[in-house]
Amino acid sequence: MINPHGGNLINRVLEDSAKENVLNEKEELFGIDVTLQRAKEIENIATGVYSPLEGFLNQNDLENVMNSKRLSNDLAWTIPIILDITTEEAKKISVGDIVRLSYANQFIASMEVEDKYTFNKEELAEKVYGTNDTHHPGVIETFNLKDTLLGGKINLVDPYESLYPRYHMSPAETRKSFEERGWKTIVGFQTRNVPHVGHEYVQKTALTFVDGLFINPVIGRKKSGDFKDDVIIETYRVLIDNYYLKERAMLAILQTEMRYAGPREAIFHAIIRKNYGCTHFILGRDHAGVSNFYPPYAAQEIFEKFPDLEISPLFFPSFFYCRTCGSSANDKTCPHAPSQNLECPDPEVRVEFSGTKLRDILLKGEKLPPELIRPEVADVILKWENPFV
Amino acid sequence: MINPHGGNLINRVLEDSAKENVLNEKEELFGIDVTLQRAKEIENIATGVYSPLEGFLNQNDLENVMNSKRLSNDLAWTIPIILDITTEEAKKISVGDIVRLSYANQFIASMEVEDKYTFNKEELAEKVYGTNDTHHPGVIETFNLKDTLLGGKINLVDPYESLYPRYHMSPAETRKSFEERGWKTIVGFQTRNVPHVGHEYVQKTALTFVDGLFINPVIGRKKSGDFKDDVIIETYRVLIDNYYLKERAMLAILQTEMRYAGPREAIFHAIIRKNYGCTHFILGRDHAGVSNFYPPYAAQEIFEKFPDLEISPLFFPSFFYCRTCGSSANDKTCPHAPSQNLECPDPEVRVEFSGTKLRDILLKGEKLPPELIRPEVADVILKWENPFV
Repeated sequence: MINPHGGNLINRVLEDSAKENVLNEKEELFGIDVTLQRAKEIENIATGVYSPLEGFLNQNDLENVMNSKRLSNDLAWTIPIILDITTEEAKKISVGDIVRLSYANQFIASMEVEDKYTFNKEELAEKVYGTNDTHHPGVIETFNLKDTLLGGKINLVDPYESLYPRYHMSPAETRKSFEERGWKTIVGFQTRNVPHVGHEYVQKTALTFVDGLFINPVIGRKKSGDFKDDVIIETYRVLIDNYYLKERAMLAILQTEMRYAGPREAIFHAIIRKNYGCTHFILGRDHAGVSNFYPPYAAQEIFEKFPDLEISPLFFPSFFYCRTCGSSANDKTCPHAPSQNLECPDPEVRVEFSGTKLRDILLKGEKLPPELIRPEVADVILKWENPFV
Repeated sequence: MINPHGGNLINRVLEDSAKENVLNEKEELFGIDVTLQRAKEIENIATGVYSPLEGFLNQNDLENVMNSKRLSNDLAWTIPIILDITTEEAKKISVGDIVRLSYANQFIASMEVEDKYTFNKEELAEKVYGTNDTHHPGVIETFNLKDTLLGGKINLVDPYESLYPRYHMSPAETRKSFEERGWKTIVGFQTRNVPHVGHEYVQKTALTFVDGLFINPVIGRKKSGDFKDDVIIETYRVLIDNYYLKERAMLAILQTEMRYAGPREAIFHAIIRKNYGCTHFILGRDHAGVSNFYPPYAAQEIFEKFPDLEISPLFFPSFFYCRTCGSSANDKTCPHAPSQNLECPDPEVRVEFSGTKLRDILLKGEKLPPELIRPEVADVILKWENPFV
């Protein structure tokens, strides 16, 4: 079994007795209300999804992450996991305090405040997203942060309820499940989309070289136009039921928000899957990208700078279905490019695998071609009046 | 560019002046007539296909190869490259002599005799093929060897003509060609068969992860029932013309004989492709096997013992075409097994990719299904009255 990032699976979930102590003194603690997104981050930290993080980043770590894509202990880490609070809240909190973190009136976790600091939003956006362009959803998100950051370890009292308990697993649980299945090599697949035939092709190609496939969609806030969480989960359930061996494929959710940080998010996604126990991680074209903010293969090339990551990236190009090949294909394997090849008379020879194309067809109410999407998966999507966020 | 095995590309082809000297004294040299197979081995040694070998194995190296699958300098080497002579010839040759090697009355090479020794055929067969069963073509071959072996460096005077000059390339030439094409990573594919859709699938899957594909069929003596060399070359030419990008796939022949030594031959095949400049090498099920002499994945597992090989093996399972998946598939990716799955009513759901099955269909004169073989490739095979050796 691959080691978690940093060597140990972090567990900041309070045991019953410690939990009771915290609950007894909760009225005395200063309380901070967090967003649902932050509540899910707290759970991810506490259950080791973000190992080696034990809490929200201190200033020193944040600056290292921004400038060198590593924590101050030199471990790879590319995405800021930060807790923002208002200036008013900040005035009432001192380093050394223990604070109470709540979501929707539910006491989720306590936090040992180790650092309280301000930050430059433009600089943070520029470093993490490579831009200050407010067309980038991550930039908007950064500019909307409150003005002060709190760093420090958290202790989970109670996670906020999961909407999908059946597919909600902690790294300790996925690792146990991989072991029970006898999987020694596992490839992780990140997604925020319904599965088309191109996704299936990439997953099955990777699976051919390992023992098991871990399909791990991001459930949580995404950008407008992305598929709804329910649609993603239901389509994958149907795809696995019809086209996968149950003993070779496993579906579990990752509750976090998409950052659309391209290359930096690719490393972050790989680290998370390493914590879940994956030995390999699939990276397609423009992983975690948005619009044209990142070069198409930047999220693959960045892995050269992280030879110490331990999880092995599997790089895939862009795929399409070629009717002449009669199979999924890519620009290296298929010579039947309609526009360049006069011997190839059929302009419809290539069916592009594309989430954007899929969305277009759905919005126009046209028929979904079976070369692009499995009929069973299409049926699920078509049940929704509006499958999009 | 990957280094040749042992670090240097062997070149034992005589330059013009040296060649003239040898030709001047050829009448004084004791002459040995060799078989066509041996003539091709001499060329392979001289042009670096068998780097680091500079000649036929001495006794010390042969024993190391038999017992530890390595030369006496500890470099991986698994197949004996030996020159057998009769007892009568042996009487006339002493260590230190230079002898003349000829095929079909053509002076091919001179040889510096470094060692002359006898050997135990039963032991050699047992060590190399794992059996003394005379149903194994390699065992027969070993038992038919003459009784004495000569070891020593060779100097190529003239290679015996190639039947396929267009596809005949030395490692120096393939390396130059890879460089000109800008290929940094190249996957080698060994074959002794006409290409079916399963071969194409495996080749294209591997090509997806590298820059170029080097298709390198073995041309030379094979067992009865294998396809004729002409059929193999012509079918690959047609397949590449119709289904590959010329800038991504290259066809060249390897003139040697199949040994059917399974795992040992897999290592040998990988070393040869490393010498040609390949960085990766494809290994399917039962590579270089015959009947049931080797466990189906023994030729993949043996690579664990050769972590120093430098060329990366790419292991593939057995594939089939699944009509429900609508694609090539394997036992890890496809749940539609007709015999085990009652939900799957079609007993014809899986088309096995199998050379044996292909041969059976051809012998019965039945139609070749397009899921098994490309129509253009089938047309080539059907042109031959008898496509088999």
